[in-house]
Order: sequence, then C-alpha cells, then structure tokens
Amino acid sequence: MAEDPHQRPATPLLDRVERPAALRRLSDRDLKRLADELRAETISAVSVTGGHLGAGLGVVELTVAIHAVFDTPRDRLIWDVGHQAYPHKILTGRRERIRTLRQGGGLSGFTKRSESDYDPFGAAHSSTSISAALGFAAARDLGGDPGDAIAVIGDGALSAGMAYEAMNNAGGLGKRLIVILNDNEMSIAPPVGAMSAYLSRIYAGAPFQDLKAAAKTAASFLPPPFREGARRAKDMFKSLAFGGSLFEELGFSYIGPLDGHDLDQLLPVLRTVKARADGPVLVHVLTKKGKGYAPAEAARDRGHATAKFDVATGAQAKAASNAPSYTKVFATSLIDEAERDDKIVAVTAAMPDGTGLNLFAERFPKRCFDVGIAEQHGVTFSAGLAAGGMKPFAAIYSTFLQRGYDQVVHDVAIQRLPVRFAIDRAGLVGADGATHAGSFDIAFLANLPGFIVMAAADEAELRHMVATARAIDDGPSAFRFPRGDGVGVEMPERGAPLEIGRGRMMREGTRVALLSFGARLKECLKAAEELEAMGLSSSVADARFAKPLDRDLILRLAREHEVLITIEEGAIGGFGSHVMHLLAEEGALESGLRIRSMVFPDTFLDQDSPVRMYQTAGMSAADIKAKAIAALEAGAERIAAKA
Amino acid sequence: MAEDPHQRPATPLLDRVERPAALRRLSDRDLKRLADELRAETISAVSVTGGHLGAGLGVVELTVAIHAVFDTPRDRLIWDVGHQAYPHKILTGRRERIRTLRQGGGLSGFTKRSESDYDPFGAAHSSTSISAALGFAAARDLGGDPGDAIAVIGDGALSAGMAYEAMNNAGGLGKRLIVILNDNEMSIAPPVGAMSAYLSRIYAGAPFQDLKAAAKTAASFLPPPFREGARRAKDMFKSLAFGGSLFEELGFSYIGPLDGHDLDQLLPVLRTVKARADGPVLVHVLTKKGKGYAPAEAARDRGHATAKFDVATGAQAKAASNAPSYTKVFATSLIDEAERDDKIVAVTAAMPDGTGLNLFAERFPKRCFDVGIAEQHGVTFSAGLAAGGMKPFAAIYSTFLQRGYDQVVHDVAIQRLPVRFAIDRAGLVGADGATHAGSFDIAFLANLPGFIVMAAADEAELRHMVATARAIDDGPSAFRFPRGDGVGVEMPERGAPLEIGRGRMMREGTRVALLSFGARLKECLKAAEELEAMGLSSSVADARFAKPLDRDLILRLAREHEVLITIEEGAIGGFGSHVMHLLAEEGALESGLRIRSMVFPDTFLDQDSPVRMYQTAGMSAADIKAKAIAALEAGAERIAAKA
Repeated sequence: MAEDPHQRPATPLLDRVERPAALRRLSDRDLKRLADELRAETISAVSVTGGHLGAGLGVVELTVAIHAVFDTPRDRLIWDVGHQAYPHKILTGRRERIRTLRQGGGLSGFTKRSESDYDPFGAAHSSTSISAALGFAAARDLGGDPGDAIAVIGDGALSAGMAYEAMNNAGGLGKRLIVILNDNEMSIAPPVGAMSAYLSRIYAGAPFQDLKAAAKTAASFLPPPFREGARRAKDMFKSLAFGGSLFEELGFSYIGPLDGHDLDQLLPVLRTVKARADGPVLVHVLTKKGKGYAPAEAARDRGHATAKFDVATGAQAKAASNAPSYTKVFATSLIDEAERDDKIVAVTAAMPDGTGLNLFAERFPKRCFDVGIAEQHGVTFSAGLAAGGMKPFAAIYSTFLQRGYDQVVHDVAIQRLPVRFAIDRAGLVGADGATHAGSFDIAFLANLPGFIVMAAADEAELRHMVATARAIDDGPSAFRFPRGDGVGVEMPERGAPLEIGRGRMMREGTRVALLSFGARLKECLKAAEELEAMGLSSSVADARFAKPLDRDLILRLAREHEVLITIEEGAIGGFGSHVMHLLAEEGALESGLRIRSMVFPDTFLDQDSPVRMYQTAGMSAADIKAKAIAALEAGAERIAAKA
Repeated sequence: MAEDPHQRPATPLLDRVERPAALRRLSDRDLKRLADELRAETISAVSVTGGHLGAGLGVVELTVAIHAVFDTPRDRLIWDVGHQAYPHKILTGRRERIRTLRQGGGLSGFTKRSESDYDPFGAAHSSTSISAALGFAAARDLGGDPGDAIAVIGDGALSAGMAYEAMNNAGGLGKRLIVILNDNEMSIAPPVGAMSAYLSRIYAGAPFQDLKAAAKTAASFLPPPFREGARRAKDMFKSLAFGGSLFEELGFSYIGPLDGHDLDQLLPVLRTVKARADGPVLVHVLTKKGKGYAPAEAARDRGHATAKFDVATGAQAKAASNAPSYTKVFATSLIDEAERDDKIVAVTAAMPDGTGLNLFAERFPKRCFDVGIAEQHGVTFSAGLAAGGMKPFAAIYSTFLQRGYDQVVHDVAIQRLPVRFAIDRAGLVGADGATHAGSFDIAFLANLPGFIVMAAADEAELRHMVATARAIDDGPSAFRFPRGDGVGVEMPERGAPLEIGRGRMMREGTRVALLSFGARLKECLKAAEELEAMGLSSSVADARFAKPLDRDLILRLAREHEVLITIEEGAIGGFGSHVMHLLAEEGALESGLRIRSMVFPDTFLDQDSPVRMYQTAGMSAADIKAKAIAALEAGAERIAAKA
C-alpha cells in the first residue's frame, strides 16, 4: 500500500509550543530539535496547500532563534516579503490553520497585521521591512509602542533602492534597530548586480568556525553583569565581523557572516545583539533556500513556489490546461518579433521566470536585462534605452509597476519615449491576494497624456498587442493581460499590429451593449447569450484600447442601445471613467441611455481562486447579466412612472 | 545715477562660443577665462528671470570641462535634476534665449529633450540620471546610438534609492559609463543620512594638491601612444583615488575627490577617464553651491532658487501678498495641532522648506523626520510610525508622491494605517512646468479602498483639513492644496474637524450646478455670478471630499438642476469620474441631466504663470461659464429638435 503523501510528521516538541514564549524556556539543544520538527511540519503543510516552500525552509533555524531570543510580539519582528514566514506562522499560534495557506478564507501566504499580533507589519512586495522597522523604532523612542524592531531581509531585496533609502536614513538617525540580512544568494531568480557580488566576496572566505568561537566568547559575558565602561557595543560587534565595510560606511554595526542553520552561532550572536545594540546593527546570516528538503535544494529555483506535492518524491500535482499561459504567449510573441527586429530589448525587475523573459534571455542573452528588484531604475533605464534608439519592452507585473510610477510619468510619458510596458498579472490574481492584485494600472496609465493603453481579451489578442506595441514608435504604450492560462482560442501564426484606438464588435444586438476592456470579454459573451435566451438582444464589443478610445464605436453603442455597460478588470477611474467622460462631453448621456460601469469593488479582496474572486467582485457572467436586467428594469420603471 | 541692476557683463570669449565644439579648440588657460565669463553671464541671466541660481554657479567649471573634453552631443551628457544646467544651456546654443528661463514660451528651468540635442534626457525629479545614462550605454553596446554616457549627479540625489539601484545594476553590468558625483554637501536642504556622512569622511582629509599632481602625471601619458599591456584602467584610476571604497564595492572605479572649481584637476582627470575607462567610473567632484557670487554663497540655501534680483546687492524682488501661502498655513496648522497632541509627527523627503516643515522642526525637532530624497522609504517609514502608535503627517508634493505610490497602496492603504498625506503643489504649479504639476494624485488615491481624499478650496479649509486628518485614526487620509498664496479668506483661530464625506453649499440656484473639488471654487463662484447676471441661476458647491463622496449633496444637485459640472485641479479619472460613476449607478444620469466634467486637458502643459496655465487648461471662470452655457444650449437644441 502506498504511503499517504501528506502524512503528518511526528512533532512531539512542537506540539507543546503554542506561542513563542514557550521557546524561551527550552534549552539550546531542545531548540535544535524543535527546528527539525518545524521544518518537517512546514514541508508537510506546503505539500497540502502549495505555496512558497524554499524560502521558509531556509529560515527555520533563524525563525526559532529570533523567537527564542527576542520578546515577540512586544518586540516587532518584520519579515521582508513575508513568503518565508510559514515557519513563523506555525510558531505563532497559526499551526492549526497552516494547511489553509493561500486558500480562500485561509491564512495569507504573506505576513498580515489582521492575522496575528506577531505580524506587526504586513508584507508581500519586497524591501519594505527596514523602513517599517525604523518607523517602529522611531515611534518607540518618542513614547509610542515599546520593544525592539527587527527586520529580516533577503539579499535579493537589497537590490531595491527602498532598502538602501531606509539604511541610509537609519544609519543617519542612529536609533537602535536590528536588521538581519538573510543571504541565500537567491531571491526568486539568482540575484543580480554589484551588491550581490559584494556579498559573495564577503562570504567567499568567511571563517564560520572562528565566528562561532567569537560568538560564544562574546555571549559568555552576557547577560548581566555587564562591565560598566566596557567597550562600545560597536567595537564589541567588530570582533564578530569579517567584512561588511559597506554597511559600516552606511552607519550600521556589521556582524557576520553567520551560518544561518547553526543555532550555536545564531543564538549567542542574537543574544549579544539584544543585550548590547545601541544603534543600527546588521547581522549577516547565510542560509540555503530549500534547506533540509532534497527536492527543493535540487531545484533550479530552490523550491521557491510550488504546487501541492508528494512529500516523499517532491513530485508536484499540476492541473492540465488546454491553453497556453498568457505569460508564455507574451514571451514567445516577443521572441518572434525580436527575431525580425534587432532593436527589441527586454527589461525585467528580478522576475525573469514570472514574466517569461527567461525564454527571451535564452534566445537573446545580450538583449535581456534583469535589473534587480528595482522598478524605479528599470523604468528609467528602459527610457534611456529608448532614447538611445532601441525598442525596449519593460515586462513588469501590474502591482509592481506601482513601484515605478513616477518614472513612468516623468521619464517616459512626459518625454514621449517609446517604452512598451508588458503588464502581466493584470486584475485579480488568486492565491497571492490583495497585495498582488493588478487593480490600478488602467487608471494610473490611461490618464497620462500620450499613452496608449491596451488590454488583451484572449491570448491571440495578446500576440497581436505585442506586435502593435513594437510598431508604436513615437510614444509610450502598455498592454495588460491576466495571470493564468488563455481561453483556448486559435492562435495566429504571427502577431499583426492592430489599428490604434479601434475596438471590435463581437456580437450585434439591439437593447443591451456590453463593452469589455480586457479578459472579461468571455464573461460578457456568456452573459449576452443568456440575455438573448431571455429575449433581450445584446451586443458585445471588445474595446481593446482604453486610450485612445474608439469614439465611433462607443458613440454608436450609446446611440443604438438602451443600456451600455462597461466592464474592466480594474478599479474605478480607468476605462469606464474615460467612456463616461467621452459620452458626457458628447452629450450622449442625455438621451436616457442607461450607462453602468463595472469595476472592482471598493475593497481589497483577500486571496481565493481567481474565479471565486471575480464572483466576490461581482464580475461574473451572472453579475453582468443581472446588471443589464436591472438597468433595463430601471428604465421601464421610469417610463411607467412617467406614463 | 544708479547702475542698471541687470547690466550685461562683458564676455568676449563666451561671445565667440556658439557651440561646445568651440571649447575643444581653446587652451586650458582660455577655458578658465571662459568659465569666469560663463559665471558672470549666468548671474546676469538669473537676475532677470529668477530661478535656480546656486546649483548652476557650483558647476560652471565642471560644465566647461565636460564640454571641452567630451564630444557632446554625440557623447550624452545627462544632468541629474537639471536645475544646475543653466551654464550648460548658455554653452549649447541657448544663450540668446537664456533670459526667458522658466517664463511662458521660454526655456525650461530644467533640461529637456525637445529643447536641444545637447539635452539627450530631460530631468526635473531627482536621481534619474544614472539609470538613463546606463540605458544609453546599453543601447550603444547593442548597436544603438554611439557615444559616451555621462551622468552628473549631486550628493543629495544619492540619498534616493533609484540612484543606488542604477549603480547596483551598472556595477553588475560593467559597461563603460561615467558618473560624476557633484558633491556640494547641499541639495535643496542640507543632506541627511549615512551616505552624506560617508562622503564627508572622504573629503575631510582630501589631499587636493596630491591629486592635482597625480592627475597631471596620469594625463601626461595620454592621449596616444598608450603602452600596450599597460596596467588596467581600474588600477590606473586607483592612483587617482583617495577613498571611495563604498563605490568600489559597488563595482565602480572611483576617482577623487577633486576640487570642482579647479580646471587644472578637472581637465586632466576627465581626459584620462575619456581615454581609459573600460567600465563604470565614478568621478567625485567637490563644488560649492553659489560659488563666485557672494550673496548666494552667504545664503542659508546657497542661492538655491531665487526671484529676480539686483546683481550688485543680491536683493530679491518679491511680490507682496495679502494672504498667507498654503504651505505656511499647513505648517502653522500642524504645529497648532501638535501642541495639543504629542503623537503627531511629521515626515518630509528632503523638502523641509518647501513643505513648511522647517517651521515644525524648529518647534518639535525630535518629532520631524527628513528622510532624504526617499519617498518610497518615507511613506513606509510613516506607515511604521503609524503602526507604532504615532500620528504621522507625510508632507510630500503631489508630483513626488508618485515616487511612493506602491508604498501608499501596499503599506498604507491595504493595511488601513492612519498615515496623513499633506499634498502640497496640487494642480498646475507655474514656472516648474509639466514635470512638477500635481495632476494625478486625485485619481491614484481616490481609487484606493478606504482612503479619505480631501482638497482645500481655500486656506481656512486647509486649516480645518489638517484638524480633520488628525482626527482620522482608523485609516489613511490625504488632503491636497495648491502652490502659492491663499485667497485671503478670514482664518479661523483653530482648525475644527470636518464631517467626513460632507461637502458644503456655497450658493443656491436652479439651473446650473457647479461642483468644485479644490481651489477652483473661487473661479466657480465668479462664473456663477456671471451666469446669474445673464439670468442663468446657478448653484455652487464645494465637495471637500473626493472620497467618500457626499452622496446626498451630489444626488440633490443632479436632481434639481439641468446642468451639473464638476471641476477639479487634476487629470481625468479622479473626482469627476467618481461623481459620474455614482450618478450612473443611481440611475441619476437618465433623466436628461447634462453632466460635464472639467479636468486637465490630455497634454503636458509647459511652464507659464499659474493663471495662464489654468487658462490654457480651459479652467478659468470664463471657461466654466462657457461650459455651462454650451451645456444648457445643447439641452435646448435637443428639446427643440424633439418638438
């Protein structure tokens, strides 16, 4: 009989730990056993739910050490990004629910304030932790909430300017603040840039054994009694450091590098830091992503994110799909264009796999730039490439493009530079929840003068929009497309540039017009069929462009129907707003037309399956149909009232 | 007889320089004379126009040296921010127009691609230059436009994460790239943070004389013949460096620090760099803001920005105003609140004077944080302060808040943290032009769930909104206000919290309703009076809130008037869109109401006086009146057509 792939491991020590306070009563030896059990429980849980596995496995010992040494939740522990926090969740009262990770109604895949007092500051986007921790430290020093502030940040996250801004500020302010650099030489993709090379130089010759001895000696003097008048903490820390001058120059005391899987190093060093830190301290910890689970350690991405899997073999359960993913269609379409146009280059901000640009980079290694987790730079770098005569495609998720918004405005739009933004993960994204939803890009791009903004209704449209973007050479453009698989339409051999500002009629009717921008088109067609079955003749159009609008199409729909409903996978202020503005200016709203605009509800939606999230958002075919019927009835009532 | 304060200086050498190519034929001795003439011409020009004086005076020699050594415009010279580029403009064919700086129809106060081939990449916001230069370098190496890429960036701009992101990427890529660090220990305010302290340590003991000798020796070997097999450029540069290990760690060759006013250092070092650089090089140049003009050197801000002035005395001509500036009202109101609430803290991103927080810092030095040019960090730091129990006011100009947009979404809005955003320079700003316009914040904030978004119609309203923001303790809020002086209304002794989501009726009429969000209210009142004089009875309301909307007020206006016009000082997608969306959902557009939404035109507006910019935008009282009349006539025509 086959073993149950999700059998729960035996965890006698962990079973007795309900809260981190219990850790502080365990011996160092028991803490090591506890770490082993915590690792096994983490693997077991993620095998059931899928999710971010490698990052959590890399910080099992670190998680145990921090909670054992610091007084959480009074001390504020802030995990950068938060996808390494599953072991932390297990230790902080959420073990019962850990097998609901990333499910609708379950635990978030990231840290989240509303979920636990042990999550003092939520995360998901990278590189925010030092800023937040410094905020807590500054508040504390002004009489706000007490306690230490501890940020745990990965080496990949250090490529983001925001982390540098925070260190620069922290180093200048000199407040007590603890930053733990979790250095696994791996964010999602292998890290890039000079900082990463610098860190490699530090640990290339790191004498772990020496540091272990030094740490123990230092800790033997701690805790009390301290000698009054002893050396400054900074000098004491120096004896624990092998390298790190760059951080010292930025005003931090540097300690490390430590072996992050060795509690004999972690515990004494963190105890020393807790007892003696009198300013910003950076503890450099080396860890291995996927540590302790062979299939993850062996994987190229170190088990970064995984579907449900068999614990014994690591084999992942993946749903079959008949359609290619939008990401893949984008990548292959861009490669196809680039084969015929050697000016095309591609830019990603540390997401080569997520954006599909790994495929582009394989084919055109010199024409693909991974700039690090650095959207601000990435956008302006793209603008520089465009000004230098190239045709850059900046492939950035909708939610991450928010990081480069000023650069989109200031460096791209105002200068009318032909940067092409390929916006993946537009709309609701499922398991990653509210922080990763691509909700705002339509509004924040379509109000920029001179921008061309497109959304793909299906994967064939996406291929054409890649070709269209290539052809737009006199100003900026963007095309957005959703996460996940296409709808299964027939794919054109090659992309063909679309006429700018022209939508397409999908279905002609007489009473209701459904005007879709993006991938709700399929739901609109379904709704129209159901309306038709009720005798309510309906048109469906695919706007393709939020900017420039297809004025003729929109004005005709307004003129020839009783009800016009716009629908888009985004928040208010975008496509629907532009349509209403046009109709208002043209006086087309004054004839009794019943216009409605379907946008995301005014709330941040928690994770769930994309289908259920769109139901929650009120944007399924049934919702569209109901909206149309209600609008028709409102008109009928008005007419009846007048009669 | 008094001397003409704007008398033009004698500039015999400069008069013969039409383009930078002419500099390359001058002797080093003549280049020094030319620099003196260029300085005199710069002072003379700015005395006529007002503008950014100190920064330009600090880089006169540097400007001459770069253009004399490099082959501009083939070599791409990118000035960070660009307000130090007046001498550059004088040398690059724009001398004739230099006395039109920052005027309507005149030269921009920043660099601008559309203005000159010598401006390969425009600027205005800080810290973009290295990213852009790296883009040019990467394009060049892929067969794009040839030439060197040279970024000149100030020490203040180095506090921005974007500059670090670019250096990190450049250091990793290893492409030939020249970054000149113009270190004047002064951006607009004295710089803050650890990087600034680091730079101070470098130049504290900088042996200028030694470097001068080393530079001359190095240059004596250049240009050809080079010895084949000579030391690598990096080693050669090392002999020109005294410090700079931090930049070396980031993959740059470091040279410096040089005396930036000594052409005997600048010329040989730049020639060496041009001849030998084989990767990213950072040349560290020390300059003095305001150099060579005593009144500027003596000023606290080193003559950062000035009104027109008398060259002999430095006395500035300032227009008198009867009303306090909005900035001052914000600052004094916040101080007033903070006197009674010790949880209030304030955050600025390197703009203490511009935001008025210098006044707050004088009164509460420990409760005011200048985080550097670091909006990303500043926003999340504020979120951390809020999570730690404080009441942070983040005072950031509308245009610069674009830099922290993701942090507003991800760290503030999703977590519902009560950060208060005080958004100065909302709307059109005058002489600083398109790059500084506050156009997009209404749209990009009002579509965030849970955000409260206010705009002040006058300075008394601003005082109340500061009090309102203080009282909003369960989620984020923002209040926006324009650049410049208030309208002269009577000021309340103290601010009183407004009811959330309630507007106010200013004037009751019957046919036309003007619904203003923000400081166009005065124009609306004027338009209403003129309409009234024509027999067209008009209401005027001040919405106060774009979110939440005053539903009752808006629905009543829609019900009781033939025409409803919204007006806001911002782009499409904001207040007017929210109003139309509400009316559509409520079925209130279907009764024949003629709704119009007045927003900024779909173009970036060049600098001019604010009044003229609003005329260009079509948002003066006359425009509002015309809009109302046209809408009424459209209705009349329709009725006539039906009859």
